[in-house]
Amino acid sequence: MKVILVGFGVIGKGVAKVIEEKKEYLKNKYGLDLKVVAICDRSGAAIDENGLDLKTALNVKEGTKKISNYPEKGTGMSIVEVIKTVNADAIVEATPTNIETGEPAKTHIIEAFKNGKHVITANKGPLALYFNELTSYAEKYNKIFRYEASVGGAMPIINLAKETLAGNEITEIKGILNGTTNYILTKMEKEKLDFDTVLKEAQELGIAETNPHQDISGLDTAAKIVILANSIMNRNVSIKDVKLEGITRITPEALTMANKSGYTIKLIGEVSKNKLEVCPKLIPIDSPMNVKGSLNVAMLNTDLAKEIVVVGRGAGDIETSSAILSDIISVYLRTKR
Amino acid sequence: MKVILVGFGVIGKGVAKVIEEKKEYLKNKYGLDLKVVAICDRSGAAIDENGLDLKTALNVKEGTKKISNYPEKGTGMSIVEVIKTVNADAIVEATPTNIETGEPAKTHIIEAFKNGKHVITANKGPLALYFNELTSYAEKYNKIFRYEASVGGAMPIINLAKETLAGNEITEIKGILNGTTNYILTKMEKEKLDFDTVLKEAQELGIAETNPHQDISGLDTAAKIVILANSIMNRNVSIKDVKLEGITRITPEALTMANKSGYTIKLIGEVSKNKLEVCPKLIPIDSPMNVKGSLNVAMLNTDLAKEIVVVGRGAGDIETSSAILSDIISVYLRTKR
Repeated sequence: MKVILVGFGVIGKGVAKVIEEKKEYLKNKYGLDLKVVAICDRSGAAIDENGLDLKTALNVKEGTKKISNYPEKGTGMSIVEVIKTVNADAIVEATPTNIETGEPAKTHIIEAFKNGKHVITANKGPLALYFNELTSYAEKYNKIFRYEASVGGAMPIINLAKETLAGNEITEIKGILNGTTNYILTKMEKEKLDFDTVLKEAQELGIAETNPHQDISGLDTAAKIVILANSIMNRNVSIKDVKLEGITRITPEALTMANKSGYTIKLIGEVSKNKLEVCPKLIPIDSPMNVKGSLNVAMLNTDLAKEIVVVGRGAGDIETSSAILSDIISVYLRTKR
Repeated sequence: MKVILVGFGVIGKGVAKVIEEKKEYLKNKYGLDLKVVAICDRSGAAIDENGLDLKTALNVKEGTKKISNYPEKGTGMSIVEVIKTVNADAIVEATPTNIETGEPAKTHIIEAFKNGKHVITANKGPLALYFNELTSYAEKYNKIFRYEASVGGAMPIINLAKETLAGNEITEIKGILNGTTNYILTKMEKEKLDFDTVLKEAQELGIAETNPHQDISGLDTAAKIVILANSIMNRNVSIKDVKLEGITRITPEALTMANKSGYTIKLIGEVSKNKLEVCPKLIPIDSPMNVKGSLNVAMLNTDLAKEIVVVGRGAGDIETSSAILSDIISVYLRTKR
């Protein structure tokens, strides 16, 4: 199986590391000989239809910031050109997320389908904005479209709901889908510090981004809840449809008061037939939803299995790559015959 | 797709109810026209190659206790005879579990493979005792063998580890895999009652069985941990290899003492490369493993995704049938092309 890595930042590099590390494992366990035939970043691409050397690719990127400096196989070719011309079974779309336009990932995904390539992505932007358009391209060109890593990082949720729980109707999903806000609230609660103090500390530790708006406003969670609504619950909604409230107004006093009554406060994304919202909610202290630090959690209500709760790491390069790798393996197993 | 229901007790009836209820859903969502062509119990069988009427079958069983009384299609034919002679794609093995011999389920499973039928089962006995033998029959006859429902009821674990988390090496699994013991410990802790009092009450409520030995001795958990060891972690172990301690010696005082230090006590099954044990363990009160009542929980340690926790209902006819149905759908999707 040949794949093109589109985007070579934190996630793209994580995927390359994982594929390199798991090469023999994949061969032995699945008979999967996985070759990365192209890697793209803003500078251009490295292309080798026999498979790039991933250690070299990672070193070149580390040393020069540009994958186009890959010895001999480097080129200034654009990403779309690579998707159109390089022979491969699938692309892994891992360019930076843009939840206002979905670009450039949206174009990459559509071009991949048009050019006969399956798509695996971690990119929330295009999924949250153009879900139906993208899935209809996948159907039209009879290609597989998988995006487990777009929600909850390593925490299984989309494939869990659609495959592991097949046969169940999912009537409601609620969860903590943003690790940064969970880290902030957990710390505020434990150390009785105010929001600004904890946010600043989290930024210094690299847990919160320099521009934390998407996390603390709830927008990031909203994008994820929209993806779950469309992909698991057959709704047809966009990020503009989400009732949204962030965590900036939560005080340590509010958390202490909640604690006294046996509750904590978490930023919860929730979707059901008639609901699509992200806002801070009271959660019983002994609820399985009360997970600490930067963990993610989701509770699925289903008609047969009843409630299923899953907890995992919502971020991290290797963790997110775990979900991407399981999608790659699934594409391989579904197409090898 | 045609299936034979082998065993028509609590689980078998649950499966029939779920298939009946989900008939249209399965057609619309998966294009799956699922027919139950035979149902067996100790009295004989009901057979109709065009598909039995499941409401009639459930009524006959309810009213007369014998499926062989099914109007016109009833017969005294033995289960093995049905498996050998009735044309079907798969059997659902749901006879009572025997963790000393694995019979009669073991024979049913082997006969199914020999006669070209896939097998879906919830039956712990044969899996805990003869895992390698059974999987080698499946391989020899090129048939699919699925058993999600055998561990954790509706809680996804086997397919979660093998499929949703594909690409990950699972290095450790620990969990609460028996709802009865979790119910007893939760109640002892909350109401400060002793073991015998709570057990008696649980028996009166039908939560614990009249003979609770397998649950409270840890044997039931041991069978499940052996299934996880063999199926997910490539170990080759049997129930005799499990280091085993039950919950009968736990006192309310021990629970109170644990609580004071921030812990609770749970009956934990645990498997890793060098470990295979079931015993009461201290679990931090704020751990995701501290689930209440009769819930089940499992924590999987993996190389890429790190820790994944899953919580669900470990028992119940419809809940267990949920896992069986997802296995049926998976067999259908893998074989329809």
